[in-house]
Amino acid sequence: MRWFGRGGKAAEGTRSRSKSKAHAELPIDRVALDNVELDPLALLGRAAYVQLAQFHALSRAAADAPTVEAKGSLASAAGQFLASHRAMVAALEHRGANPAEAMAPFEPATDRFFADVRGANWYEGLTSCYLVDGLLDDFYSRLLAGIEPDGRELSRLLTGPRASAEVVAVLSAAIARDPRLGSRLAVWGRRLVGDTLLCARGALPETVRTPAGEARVEPVLTELMAEHTRRMDRLGLTA
Amino acid sequence: MRWFGRGGKAAEGTRSRSKSKAHAELPIDRVALDNVELDPLALLGRAAYVQLAQFHALSRAAADAPTVEAKGSLASAAGQFLASHRAMVAALEHRGANPAEAMAPFEPATDRFFADVRGANWYEGLTSCYLVDGLLDDFYSRLLAGIEPDGRELSRLLTGPRASAEVVAVLSAAIARDPRLGSRLAVWGRRLVGDTLLCARGALPETVRTPAGEARVEPVLTELMAEHTRRMDRLGLTA
Repeated sequence: MRWFGRGGKAAEGTRSRSKSKAHAELPIDRVALDNVELDPLALLGRAAYVQLAQFHALSRAAADAPTVEAKGSLASAAGQFLASHRAMVAALEHRGANPAEAMAPFEPATDRFFADVRGANWYEGLTSCYLVDGLLDDFYSRLLAGIEPDGRELSRLLTGPRASAEVVAVLSAAIARDPRLGSRLAVWGRRLVGDTLLCARGALPETVRTPAGEARVEPVLTELMAEHTRRMDRLGLTA
Repeated sequence: MRWFGRGGKAAEGTRSRSKSKAHAELPIDRVALDNVELDPLALLGRAAYVQLAQFHALSRAAADAPTVEAKGSLASAAGQFLASHRAMVAALEHRGANPAEAMAPFEPATDRFFADVRGANWYEGLTSCYLVDGLLDDFYSRLLAGIEPDGRELSRLLTGPRASAEVVAVLSAAIARDPRLGSRLAVWGRRLVGDTLLCARGALPETVRTPAGEARVEPVLTELMAEHTRRMDRLGLTA
């Protein structure tokens, strides 16, 4: 798995590595990405809009949930993305930026991406809410950690359990009832990775979009893949 | 306008009354409804599910909003319905009830109602978020005020500005740009009233669904209509 090219054997290496550190804490404080030069306003605008899109995707899944219980628990989970969106909007305002203007450049591509990962049915859409949101949160938490003075605080908003407990509960119950659903969602989960990394890499500056730059972000990619595999495991799916 | 029958000249009377007290505070503490005998668990279950449905309707409108600014502000506004839903879920748990079971009986009719008022386009749907939510909030805040010991606190969650500032800002700007939209939304707003009152009356006990009971809730109906007219006025629409 590579960010800026095709092929490579990284994916297999990632997989076996994930087994050994499946429950390790995310090493946010020592990642390669926090020494990558980033424009704070562009990063905050992009991250704020991505959080809003995640909120919309999960609240849509909540509205269409098959049980009252899932409607309520997924709506509550969606509220966490709204809260982190608002924290980033506040960070933009604190810097004197107009949040809507800061987010606007990232709207078209982000909306297209989230439309693509909505899937063919409700279960695929909800699986995306778990796997895509997980990957994007892991990625943006690393990027945000590098901006001063509030980056680490914002970064922490994107770590921790977030919506995953509620989403995993709903999906695991459905997969347990219907093993064929599990097989289909495993395929879907593998398909999501490439698109999500492509969506994420847009946030990286041009300076790392070179062979030398690629080497700098490679360890991060490996970590993101390991976390993705751990999430697939939690659903009982093979990554 | 009557709750339990057809016809009558109440609507016209309501209309003119509303003009004189358009900006009066809602007299929650002296309404007829708080002496109506209600089952607290049924009321909380119904109100919790209605709040959740309002959250879903407004977050859906937020997701489909035409500008980044409206997407953000409407999503934040939707968060208030999520917060009041969760407060009611907490009140159910505090009473030892299972919130999902308490809400379940009200799911089918509530979902049907909210599907009906989604309208033919985004503007109609958003107008419903303002007018329907306003009517239902006014109604449930009165009912909740009558239950002990936390009814007044829950009631207050449904009063005050809530989502209306954000929704009114978006709708007013659109109506100002396109007067024909205003005419269509005025027709839509008038159509919503009957359906919404029908949705609301399900919460009233059988004991007031009689001619004598009707007389007891008549003043409340008049007040709800006055508040509805005030909301139409805020959009520049004729009720």
